[in-house]
Parts: sequence; C-alpha cells; structure tokens
Amino acid sequence: MPASQDTPDDDRIDQASRWWSTGIIDIEPGKIGIRGYPIQDLIGHIGYAQMVWLMLLGEMPGDAQARLLEAALVAAVDHGPHAPSIAIARMAVSCGLDLNGAVGSAVNVLGDVHGGAGQQCMMLYRLCRTLQGRGVADPIGQALQEYRAQHGRIVPGFGHRFHPRDPRAARLLALVDEAAAAGVVSGDYAAIGRGIEQALEAEKGRHLPMNIDGVTAVIYAELGFEPELGRGLFLLSRSVGILAHAWEQHQEGRRIKGPMPPSIPYTYTGPKTGIAK
Amino acid sequence: MPASQDTPDDDRIDQASRWWSTGIIDIEPGKIGIRGYPIQDLIGHIGYAQMVWLMLLGEMPGDAQARLLEAALVAAVDHGPHAPSIAIARMAVSCGLDLNGAVGSAVNVLGDVHGGAGQQCMMLYRLCRTLQGRGVADPIGQALQEYRAQHGRIVPGFGHRFHPRDPRAARLLALVDEAAAAGVVSGDYAAIGRGIEQALEAEKGRHLPMNIDGVTAVIYAELGFEPELGRGLFLLSRSVGILAHAWEQHQEGRRIKGPMPPSIPYTYTGPKTGIAK
Amino acid sequence: MPASQDTPDDDRIDQASRWWSTGIIDIEPGKIGIRGYPIQDLIGHIGYAQMVWLMLLGEMPGDAQARLLEAALVAAVDHGPHAPSIAIARMAVSCGLDLNGAVGSAVNVLGDVHGGAGQQCMMLYRLCRTLQGRGVADPIGQALQEYRAQHGRIVPGFGHRFHPRDPRAARLLALVDEAAAAGVVSGDYAAIGRGIEQALEAEKGRHLPMNIDGVTAVIYAELGFEPELGRGLFLLSRSVGILAHAWEQHQEGRRIKGPMPPSIPYTYTGPKTGIAK
Amino acid sequence: MPASQDTPDDDRIDQASRWWSTGIIDIEPGKIGIRGYPIQDLIGHIGYAQMVWLMLLGEMPGDAQARLLEAALVAAVDHGPHAPSIAIARMAVSCGLDLNGAVGSAVNVLGDVHGGAGQQCMMLYRLCRTLQGRGVADPIGQALQEYRAQHGRIVPGFGHRFHPRDPRAARLLALVDEAAAAGVVSGDYAAIGRGIEQALEAEKGRHLPMNIDGVTAVIYAELGFEPELGRGLFLLSRSVGILAHAWEQHQEGRRIKGPMPPSIPYTYTGPKTGIAK
Repeated sequence: MPASQDTPDDDRIDQASRWWSTGIIDIEPGKIGIRGYPIQDLIGHIGYAQMVWLMLLGEMPGDAQARLLEAALVAAVDHGPHAPSIAIARMAVSCGLDLNGAVGSAVNVLGDVHGGAGQQCMMLYRLCRTLQGRGVADPIGQALQEYRAQHGRIVPGFGHRFHPRDPRAARLLALVDEAAAAGVVSGDYAAIGRGIEQALEAEKGRHLPMNIDGVTAVIYAELGFEPELGRGLFLLSRSVGILAHAWEQHQEGRRIKGPMPPSIPYTYTGPKTGIAK
Repeated sequence: MPASQDTPDDDRIDQASRWWSTGIIDIEPGKIGIRGYPIQDLIGHIGYAQMVWLMLLGEMPGDAQARLLEAALVAAVDHGPHAPSIAIARMAVSCGLDLNGAVGSAVNVLGDVHGGAGQQCMMLYRLCRTLQGRGVADPIGQALQEYRAQHGRIVPGFGHRFHPRDPRAARLLALVDEAAAAGVVSGDYAAIGRGIEQALEAEKGRHLPMNIDGVTAVIYAELGFEPELGRGLFLLSRSVGILAHAWEQHQEGRRIKGPMPPSIPYTYTGPKTGIAK
Repeated sequence: MPASQDTPDDDRIDQASRWWSTGIIDIEPGKIGIRGYPIQDLIGHIGYAQMVWLMLLGEMPGDAQARLLEAALVAAVDHGPHAPSIAIARMAVSCGLDLNGAVGSAVNVLGDVHGGAGQQCMMLYRLCRTLQGRGVADPIGQALQEYRAQHGRIVPGFGHRFHPRDPRAARLLALVDEAAAAGVVSGDYAAIGRGIEQALEAEKGRHLPMNIDGVTAVIYAELGFEPELGRGLFLLSRSVGILAHAWEQHQEGRRIKGPMPPSIPYTYTGPKTGIAK
Repeated sequence: MPASQDTPDDDRIDQASRWWSTGIIDIEPGKIGIRGYPIQDLIGHIGYAQMVWLMLLGEMPGDAQARLLEAALVAAVDHGPHAPSIAIARMAVSCGLDLNGAVGSAVNVLGDVHGGAGQQCMMLYRLCRTLQGRGVADPIGQALQEYRAQHGRIVPGFGHRFHPRDPRAARLLALVDEAAAAGVVSGDYAAIGRGIEQALEAEKGRHLPMNIDGVTAVIYAELGFEPELGRGLFLLSRSVGILAHAWEQHQEGRRIKGPMPPSIPYTYTGPKTGIAK
C-alpha cells in the first residue's frame, strides 16, 4: 500500500503524531497531566463526579455543582433485571464472558430508545430556552409542537409505564431547587421542565410527571452539558447497575441463561415444517 | 417449541418469575429499593463510590473506605489515546456511532491483557495472604513461584514500559498508608505489595516499582473486593476516559478515522498479487 | 416486583410464550425447522448465500439470484488494516479478547458512516425508482436534490478517496448485467446507478465512479432487499475480514497493540500541566 | 508525549508502516489483492466458504473441501430466540440500535460457554490424535481423562439438553463420511468423535450423541483449522441467525423489549426496603 512519496519524512511523522491529538491528557515519562492538572494533585483531592466533569468539560467544577452531578449519577444506576441492558449483562456472563465483555455488550444497547431519552429531552429543553430567548409568546407550546413535528408524538422525559410517580424524580428536583436557591444553577431548566409537565397535563387531562430522564435532563442542562452528554453521563451511571448484576450472575454460576426458563416455550409463527418445502 | 406439559401453570409462572431473581434492586410502582434502601434516601446523601460499593457488596461503606475507593476510581480514568480502549472509542465515533456504541466497543476490550492486570495482581496478593496464614517460611517468594508456574514469568502490577515511576502509584500508596494508620484498612496488602516489589528488585537487580494496577489491587484487596471486581472497578474508572475521548472526537467530526493517517501506508507481507494464482 | 394479579395464569404463560415469537425457526426435541424446511434437508443442499436469503426473506432464492448475492458477499470482505473495523479487531485481540469479543467490538462500529453507505445508497436508488414510477421529468436529478436536502451534499456510493476506479465495482456490475440479460433481475437499479454516475460526472466535470457501496446497493436492490439489509449483508461480508485479521493478530501475539508504535508520540493540545491549576 | 528522539525519521516511518503489517490483503490505487489473488478474479468465481477459507488459511481450498465447510456454516445459523445471542440481538434492536450494534452486542457473547464448545471439542480431538500418534494403549480414554483433569467433568460436543438426537449432527456426519470415502478428508477425526461417543455411552450407560458442536468440530478438524477457528467459524454461521432475528424484531417495532412481559414480575430476594437501613 503506497503512500504519496512527495511528502517529506518529518512532515509525515508530524501528521502521524497529530493524528491522535488530544487536549485531555498529557503523558511524559513519570508525568500524567489531566487537562493541565498533575494526576497526583487530583487523586484523593477530587471525587469521581468532579473527575468526570473535568475530563468532559475541561474545567474544574465547584463543589456544589459536582454534588448535583453526583446525585444524578447515583439516581440512575439500576432499574431492575427486566431492563434490556441489565438482562443482557446477566446473560453475557452466563455465556462465559468476563466482566468487561458483559459490560461491553450491555452498555452498547443504551441507544436512542433505551438510553437516549435524556438526550432527547435536553434537546427539547434547549429548544424551549432558545424560543424563550427569542421572546415568542408560548415558548413551551411552540417547542412541543416543533419537537413533535420532527420526532413524533412521544415527549421524552415525562410519564412512566410502571411508576405512577417516579421516586427518583421528586428527590432530584428538590436538589435542583436547593441548588437554584443557593445560586449554584439558574433554575431555568427546572422551570422549563415543570412548564412542559403542566402543558402535557393540560393537554391530556391527567398528570404525566417528569421521570428520571426528564429530571436528569434538567440537571445536566442546568450544569451546562451538551445533550449528547446526557446520554454519556447516563452510561456512567447505568454501568454501575450493569456491573453489579453481571457480578451477581457470575456468583450464581448458571451456564447459557436464556431470557426465559425452559418450561416456557417460545411461539413459532412461521410455516409448518415439512409443508413449505 | 413445546414445554413439558406436566408442570402446573402456577409453577411455571413461579419458575419464570424466579428466572430473573436478584438481591440488588426491588421495584414496585412508585418504589425503588437498592439493597434495602429507598432510592430517595440515597440520592443526594451518598456519593458515586458509595453507590458502587453498595451495589456490588450489598452493604454501605464507611466514609473513609468510600474515599479510598474513590481515589482509586479517579486515578485510572485515562492513559492517553494510544491505549487501545481509547483509540477504539475515538475510531468508533468517527464511524458514526453514538456514545453508547463507542463506549461499548471500547469497554469490551478491557480484557485479560488490557484490563485484567489488576485482577491478576489481586490473585497474587491473595495467594501471599493465604500462604502467610499458613505460616510458610517465605510466603512472598513461594507465592511468586506458584503464580509464575501457573501464569508465566510476568508479574502483573509491577514495572511500566513507559513510566520509570508511575505518579499515580506513589500518591495512592500514601493514601493507603494513611487509611491503615487510621485503622480504616489493615495495611496487610500494602505490606504484601511492597514485599513483592522488594523481592522483584532483589531478583532483577533493578527497581521495578508498583504500577497503577499493582497499587489499585492493593486498595481493592484492602477494601475486601474479590479479584474479578478489580477488573470491574477498573471498567467504571476507564469508562470516564473512554467517554471523554469519544466526546472530544465527536466534536472534531472526522469521518472513518483509521489508526494512521493516509500518508503512512501499511506493509503488505503476503504473496504478490497475480503471481500466487 | 408485583404483576397485575388479575390476569389468569394461563394467559400470563401465553403472554410469556408469545413474548419471544418468531417466524424464522421452529424447534422441537429432535426437530429443527428453518422457515418451514427441516434443517437436515438444507445442510449440504444449499449454500451460505441461500441460507442467508432464506433466513432474512423467508423464501428460497433461485440459484442465479443466490450466486449474485454471493458475489456481493465475497467482494466486500476486507479493505485492509487501516479500516477502523479491522484495526479494532486486531487491537482487541492484543488486549486478550477471544475471537468473539474481537469480532463483537469490530462489527459494532460498522455504523452509519463506516458501514451504512450501502444502506443510504439503496434509499437513494429507491427514491429514484419511486420518482420514475410517478413519471417525473428528471427522476435522477430530482432524487439527488431531495436526498441532499435531507442528508447533505455527499452522495453515498460514488467516488473513493483511495481508488480512482474500484476494481470490485466493475466486476460486480458486469455480473449484474449478465443477470439482467438472463432475466434473473430487472436491471432497473443498475440503470439508476449508472444514471446517477452520469449525473454526478456532468455536475462535477470529472468521473466519480460507482464504488463498492454503490454497486452492492445495486445488487441488493435488484434482489429485493430492504435498505437496512444492505448494511446487514455487509456485516456478514466484512465479518470475514474482521475474523481473518483478528486471527492473524492472534498468531502474531503482541500485547496491548495501540494504533501507533511507541516511537510516534501523540500530540497534546491542551493546557500545560502545572500551570492551569 | 515525547518519543525517543534518537531514532531517525525514516526508521520511525518504517516502524509505523510495519505496525499494521498483514499478509492478507494488498491494496494499491485501483488494485486489491487477497492473499495474492486480484479481487476481480475472485468475485463471481469463488463462493463465500472458499473466501472464508482463503482469508483464514491463506490458500484456495478444493471444491469438495469448501462444500464441507459450507455445510457446517449452514448448519449452525440459528437455534431459536431463547439462545442468549439471539435474544440479545432482538432486545438490542428494541433499544434503538442499528443492525451493526445488535449484531455486535450479540456476537460478543459467543464466549467460552455459548460459542466455545466447538473450540474445546477440537482441543479434545487433537489431544486424542496426538495420543494416537504416540501409540498409547487407549488414546480416547486417556484423552478424556487428561481433558477432564484440566477442564472439569463436562465433555464438550456430546449430548444436548433439549434434543435427544440433534438432527444437524447425523446429516453433517454423513457428509463427513462421504468426504472421507472420496478422499477429501482423512476421516480420522470422525473416527475419534465416534470413539468418544462410544466411550461416553459405556461410561454412563446411556447414549450421549454427538451434538452440533461435536460434529462441526469433527469437520473443522478434518479440514485443518485450528481450534480457535472452530469458534471463529461458528461466529460467521450464527451471525446469520443473529441478523435475521434482529431484522425480524426491527420489523415488529417494539420499544425496550425486556426478557419477559410485564405480566411476569421478577423475584426480589434481598433485604426488605426500609428495614435494612
């Protein structure tokens, strides 16, 4: 496989060196710098949530901001073995995978539908905020209309098929309110989230409360994260549950665990064998 | 696909229900319990490291224990884009994957060689501990011998191909010593780690210092985690770096980023095309 | 976690049984039926390409159709270790993964950008076909306009950053023409592909030839596959290359292979360590 | 991140170029060679199974050899949605993943227990073959003893928890016998497989027939593949089923499909919420 021969050697080495550029981490023999901080000055001095913030946003958060982020990370670690991500981790272990493989297969499925509601909700909140900034008459109503025109009827972040009221949401919202009262965050997105909640209740004639995705979206938006990182932060949170379930399954030791016990057969709906031929 | 028809219906439902048993999380409409704690009592009250501990071990750690765990989680988040896990995350994003997919492909490769050194090191430490308990004359020498007989010459957790002295290791070891002095941990595994360090130096005639894997193995062993969870905890730590690099790459926006720039060709070592036929 | 108690037991078993319904495979003790065919009547009688077709589309293809599908599957197996999917597989093996893990991490990255061009191209072809059916004046020009309005300037399936002319494309196109001449396929999509090629040449003033994605899209569209399956079939093809490179790497035996040799450093672009603090 | 500055530029470029060496594929502008064959001479001339062979082993198989390989690839495509790999693919799609992501998460779990029986069985067969070569008195008995001493009681490749007799096994074994009669393969491994079957029957007092893993292991061993490739080839086979089920699920369109319907709750076995505190 030939390369263009007209590029001087030192330019090509330079290109190769810049191919893997990063502003995150600087490594020299005996030295590791994270966003400009010597690693030994961080270890034991900052917590996991602060490290996440520093790595993702490139600056050190205040303590109160980090606590709010941490509360959101703690809240979403698990929602039981019937969640596909958790079930997959447990099945993966029973297939002989080590924990990295089980977590890999499981985290992977936190896609648009299973892990993306928070991200979508943040996009909706942002749209509201933008429309507020433009001074439109009914920013929430208009944002809902525009969002649905593009993404369909379902409004992410509100209502839950299992919980009439999500116990995580009220607690997290209280923490946002505390933080807003203390000037840690603006409270603008909490207000937007509640506005959407009210608009949906008015529309449907029943309460459709903010769920875990809706309220973590409030927090992440208040803290200045981009919508894609709403999903990213959820990955770090749910990985805890995925890991715990993978480990529990490992300790139980079953081999090749399918989704159901053998006593419950699956249903075949295709053509009868021996006839279709 | 028929099931055995002789099992009564309620037994089969019971089997199905028990197929996904867990002692980790209890969910009812409006209620979520983690290891017996209502989720709303945890959110805002415990940190990420405590939640990890609670989820994995089923009990609430003390504050000092959690701080030591958190220091280890903070220390190992990243070691640069030349680490396969990080490079994979960045390439994955350039192939069009969302963050969950990038993290999935990347975490997956933290296998025996890239993510398993800590786990292996914990097994070695445990072996030392067991031999100490049996009162053998030279528990460290014997443990090294037995470990190598089974796993080969390389002793995991000591020496680094890049850092003459890993800046993370000294800092973490100081934290372990502090914790041992305060009675938070026993210090037994720190002593074992140092003993192995000395034995290796005596053997090789040069200092082969404890690296990040060796010292996090000390911490996790001091805190009572099983060796497999040494790898598991590393997953939670390195996921932060994987996510941060995936996000940085997303913001840069390149399409189909290979491992090297096009100006550096790869080498073909096979038969000449058109001749082999 | 309680279920609604008002559903009778036999209904709940029935629900559980139907939860995993499929029309693909029927299994009873001693019997396996694929789309209605006893497995033992397929083994040794049909080839891999026919099995792929039967599994995906639910019917048995003709021999000539299967040969055309097989040619496309053979064509796209590999494009060298600088492709992210291949590089990832090789790095994964060096991290200690077994072949399933290496293939898992690698296949996963065949996303919209790396593995989705064929799918996108099939959508474009379909749009042309639909517009032809409506009798619009310039179906190709209009399809290009509509496609770009929605997806951006790049037209998938045409041009190659490396090959001035892709040796796979001409050969595959000749096979499509043969199949069309023999009445195996209609040739409609080959004509559309060529029409787009001409339109792009007229627009840009230089030849932008159909590439492997553009021509496999022609084949899969001619054979009646949905666009999503364009990507799906590519997965089966590229998995061969991924597996072969993973295996070659396994035989070489390197540990923790990063994207570049240690002699080429990466570039750090962030704040200086020790100053930013 | 500094590199050693004493390496000349051209040496460093050479190192970088050789970092991604391969003997599989040669690419130049307008040319693609696979193991020395121009790609255009392969497309339409060789089938998928031959391409797999060429890519993995570096040489072109005979037609009869390729047909035997293809029969094995066709046989193992699917074993129903209760297999973890298939269930995972279907759940992944319901979480919003594209086909590459669903196949990635699913193929990944074909680990030692779910996808590795064939590989383990090939190791056992090889051990028998080696002992035969050494002229030991009872090579099969001794191989079983040695294998079990190292890997535990379960002998991979024999018996099935669902099928009293696997319909794929008899058919594949007949094809091996045909191939042996025609001199295509030696038949040595078929004899070994049958010998083990008889030894297990004598030991247990009941017939424990060769299953799909045992018989594909015979075929792959007869054809000269290494044990690891037994698993590798299974990946290519089962990927067809994984893809077909992912696609069927995509067409059904459910969102966030867990392992069981909501009407079947999971069982919580941990401490009561509100008490453990």
